[in-house]
This record gives sequence, structure tokens and C-alpha cells, in this order.
Amino acid sequence: MKWDEIENEVCSVSRTLAVVGDRWTMLIIRDAFLRVRRFDDFQKNLGMSRHRLSERLKKLVDYGVLKKEAYQANRYEYRLTEKGLELYPILISMAKWGDKWMDDGKGVPMLYKHNPCGHHYSPMVVCSECGEPIDPHDVTPQIGPGKFHNSRAHSACIEKAS
Amino acid sequence: MKWDEIENEVCSVSRTLAVVGDRWTMLIIRDAFLRVRRFDDFQKNLGMSRHRLSERLKKLVDYGVLKKEAYQANRYEYRLTEKGLELYPILISMAKWGDKWMDDGKGVPMLYKHNPCGHHYSPMVVCSECGEPIDPHDVTPQIGPGKFHNSRAHSACIEKAS
Repeated sequence: MKWDEIENEVCSVSRTLAVVGDRWTMLIIRDAFLRVRRFDDFQKNLGMSRHRLSERLKKLVDYGVLKKEAYQANRYEYRLTEKGLELYPILISMAKWGDKWMDDGKGVPMLYKHNPCGHHYSPMVVCSECGEPIDPHDVTPQIGPGKFHNSRAHSACIEKAS
Repeated sequence: MKWDEIENEVCSVSRTLAVVGDRWTMLIIRDAFLRVRRFDDFQKNLGMSRHRLSERLKKLVDYGVLKKEAYQANRYEYRLTEKGLELYPILISMAKWGDKWMDDGKGVPMLYKHNPCGHHYSPMVVCSECGEPIDPHDVTPQIGPGKFHNSRAHSACIEKAS
């Protein structure tokens, strides 16, 4: 499998990685959640080349994750769309994992205040049906309706999983 | 900023991306959650070169995400450690996003049964403190204790965020 084929694999993780699997892309999205909106600010924060940034922003606009909006004549801002905002669970789960496992012993770099309750919070993943926290040992992956509509069925993997 | 500097940035998202920000790496982790354990099975499922796979597996073992265990003389399996298992919220959040936004109209490729309640579930991120679902508009990022222990403080970003 080559990387330009990844979007065609019938797996929602692969399809997501086709959009956000590039590390620079995920840092752009992080900054967008931190209210960074302008090209020069992204560039200053990330220290990446203008060419590379421009390419990544264009891809995110093409995928509908960011929208480009004029705030003055010929001056643009990049804002998260609904599709982009829904990347939040991925991003905050990355932050939580990094806080716990990649801490250098000096404490967490950022705290996240949940305004409605007023506390610094940590994200918890719970079951949509029963509300209990999810333990991955308690989850059984099963073949879904969309699995075999495509030539690449990733079958060995599924056999093991089911 | 270059990619080999990314781990040194004082940001838990960057630090996480230093471990799992490579797309092949994330697919290896996906397969590990689907109970794939042996080199040849990873190789067959992912269709990546043996050299590249070997390199990625070594990195994941070095980072403590996978452990390499002998199951026969000179035959090894790769299993998720506790650190690896805690990547689950990132992975399942990616699957949910892909299901919703990268669906090709043919239904979801995989379903996830939550064994304790018996239903197919979707992951929900809730606040650890009040238990309510998190809306990213309701979160205020704030500087944490570990932010300024390192030279690269990502300051412009924080000024905007706070």
C-alpha cells in the first residue's frame, strides 16, 4: 500500500489519517483550536516554511476542515468548520496522552478549563449508549455495512478481530 | 522548527506526535488494537516494506508503546503496553471522525460493540469533573506549570489562547 492509496482503504482510521496524518497538519489544527487564524501567525508559531504551510492550509480547506474567509480586502483568516471542530476529541486525547506519558517531570504545559463547571478537566471517553468509561479490552470490533464495498478489504485484519 | 526538534517543544500534542505522528505508526497501532501481534501479520495487513515496518516497530518498542515478547525460541510478538493501550481514545476518536466525515455513503466499515452493555457504541468525550460532553467552545486553555521550563515556549500561541 502506498500513501496515495490510503484514502481508499475501507477503514475510518486510514481515511482520517489521509486528512490529518501529517504531523504539521495536526499542529496547524492544534493552533486553530488555540484561536490562531492568520497565515503569518501560524507561520510564526510553527516555524515552518511558508510554502509548506500554504500547501497544508490549502489541503485542509479542500477537505473542508478549515474555511478561508476574508476579513479585509485580500486578507484572509482560516477558521475551523464544523468538520474541523469535530477533530477536537482526537486533539484533546493526544494532549492527555502526552501529559501523562511524555511529561518530562515538570508538570503539564497546558491546563484546560471547562467553563460550564469551572474546573480544569481531563477528557474521558465514555460509551454513547451506557455512559460508562471505555476500556479497550471490553470492545469487540465487528465488520460494518461499508466494509466490503471496496476492493481492498483488509481481510486478514478483520478475521483476527472478529 | 524541524521534525527532530518536535519532541522538545513544550506541548503535549507535539510530544504525542513525536511518537505517533507518523501515519504508518498509527496504522500499526490500529492493527495492534485489532489483536495483530506478529511481524508477518503486520506486514501482510499493511503492505509496507519489511524494512520500514521493522523501523517503526523498533521505535514503538523504544518508546514503550509496544513490548516485544518471545512466544517461541527466536519468535516474537508485539503487544501493547499500558502506555500503548492508553492511545485508545485517540484511535477510536479517529475512527468516529472518519465514520462521520469520510464515509463514502456506503456505511461504516467497522462497528464497535461495548461488551458490558452489549450495544454498538460511539465514543463520547466528557469532562472528568462534571461528566458532561465537551464542546470545544466551552474550553479555555491556560498555561500549565510545565510550560516555561524549556526554551521554546510557543508564546504567541499562548497569548492568543489565554
